[in-house]
Amino acid sequence: MTLPFTLLLDPVSADAPQTDFGDTFHEVDSSAPALRVGELSAQRGDGVFETIGVVNGHPQAVGPHLARLANSASICELPEPNTAQWQAAIAHVVDRVPHEGEIVLKLVYSRGVDSGPAPTAWLHATAAPDFAAVRAGGIRAVTLDRGYPHGVAEQAPWLLMGAKTLSYAVNMAALREARRRGADDAIFLTHDGFVLEGPTSTVVLRTGGVYVSPVPSGAILHGTTQQSAFEHLRAAGERTEYRDVSVAELRAADAVWLLSSLRLAAQITELDGRPLPVERERTRALNAALLARTV
Amino acid sequence: MTLPFTLLLDPVSADAPQTDFGDTFHEVDSSAPALRVGELSAQRGDGVFETIGVVNGHPQAVGPHLARLANSASICELPEPNTAQWQAAIAHVVDRVPHEGEIVLKLVYSRGVDSGPAPTAWLHATAAPDFAAVRAGGIRAVTLDRGYPHGVAEQAPWLLMGAKTLSYAVNMAALREARRRGADDAIFLTHDGFVLEGPTSTVVLRTGGVYVSPVPSGAILHGTTQQSAFEHLRAAGERTEYRDVSVAELRAADAVWLLSSLRLAAQITELDGRPLPVERERTRALNAALLARTV
Repeated sequence: MTLPFTLLLDPVSADAPQTDFGDTFHEVDSSAPALRVGELSAQRGDGVFETIGVVNGHPQAVGPHLARLANSASICELPEPNTAQWQAAIAHVVDRVPHEGEIVLKLVYSRGVDSGPAPTAWLHATAAPDFAAVRAGGIRAVTLDRGYPHGVAEQAPWLLMGAKTLSYAVNMAALREARRRGADDAIFLTHDGFVLEGPTSTVVLRTGGVYVSPVPSGAILHGTTQQSAFEHLRAAGERTEYRDVSVAELRAADAVWLLSSLRLAAQITELDGRPLPVERERTRALNAALLARTV
Repeated sequence: MTLPFTLLLDPVSADAPQTDFGDTFHEVDSSAPALRVGELSAQRGDGVFETIGVVNGHPQAVGPHLARLANSASICELPEPNTAQWQAAIAHVVDRVPHEGEIVLKLVYSRGVDSGPAPTAWLHATAAPDFAAVRAGGIRAVTLDRGYPHGVAEQAPWLLMGAKTLSYAVNMAALREARRRGADDAIFLTHDGFVLEGPTSTVVLRTGGVYVSPVPSGAILHGTTQQSAFEHLRAAGERTEYRDVSVAELRAADAVWLLSSLRLAAQITELDGRPLPVERERTRALNAALLARTV
């Protein structure tokens, strides 16, 4: 099999259960049209997604990713995704791609065609970018106001914070704004100055000897790679904690990383133009642990 | 030609100007796949759109819609859309559809395929829903917090407020929340209680003998139907005004309407469960004027 590689899943709803998962997806030509123009993913950004890294043949954190996909679907009132079907589709791809190097699996679960009978879902596998340099050398980041006050997610669930929706235009615009400011990535803050997350990553800082990540409450996605990192750190005897983090605390931290499924741990060497302490050995060890995961 | 009907435009960028617009779009089968899974519209809600009504063969407010499409594209840093190409595509469809009744033209302008060379654009024509009853009888609406404070659009342009992007998952969730509360539609408020807009419409109220709409600044789309309505009202000797409107003023208004390209003027008969004054004759006359537009 050559990359890119695409599977369409149909039907995807647990409301229409399938017993033979071998029949519930089929390969499509990645370079040919596969979606109708009436797709609500394309018209309304109406759906949810996950991005899973595959390292040397091992798909990473499949369980947490599929649990988060189901949670996102629930927040968006989509039918419950068929987890067994997704697992089978992931296994189908992983069996057929090279077992050396890094691959990206993108899982997209859309509300389907406008006025159509069922959701649409697909799995798209591509070669991963080479993140070796950025894992070793770090990134520059800027803080950007996400516009929302702290606590709004609980008051206004229709804002869909905490769901990983396909409506990512603001996240993409934030990355463009970061580049405009000479940085590589962004960290969203609440309007009142609390740390949220990156547009495509989770924030982890080390302060007072503790690894801290902002509380993955309604406003913040619970990072799958951050969870793996915390497990590794605790096993190594480190202390980890979820709590609210102010921007002042972020700027004064002993170290800050952005964690994500493909780039893994990227240390922030410069925040809003000011240098942050660099911890090359800790970062190297953390990425080595993340790359060594077999589940 | 039967509906639905779809045209794909390619290329769409003014950076690659076309002199023969007859060659810059082609018909595709609406029921067949036309988009690749790598589409950033489908993966990221990354693109902009417009919805144009066609009444008895007359596409409505094409100029303002295409101007807003270009403005949305600019906010999202997409290449400038080719207005002449869109005009030709609209004319191509309008020439071929029935010249009686109401039709919807959806214009979608996407950033294109991930890592691809150019944006993707399409025009999708469908039969319009029958809005006669709702234009005559009105709708119930609820106010919902949009989470942003007043003025945030100017401070944080990466939030893309003022652009009509494809990232509409929150707008769709707000409509579901309205239905859950027994209403038909929603009006977004700033977190500090100023009126913004509906998820797919513009707010107009009558208070103190003046027709008022919230200032179409960075946070609010300038409604094409609201602009037509204000032109008609001014021509009829009425006073119109753009200014900030508090939720208290909205609730105390003499009348409130939501204006949009397809449903046109829908009077709000009940707001957050409390009845609002009903003005059937004004609403009828306004919709008659909007339906009579020939441009």
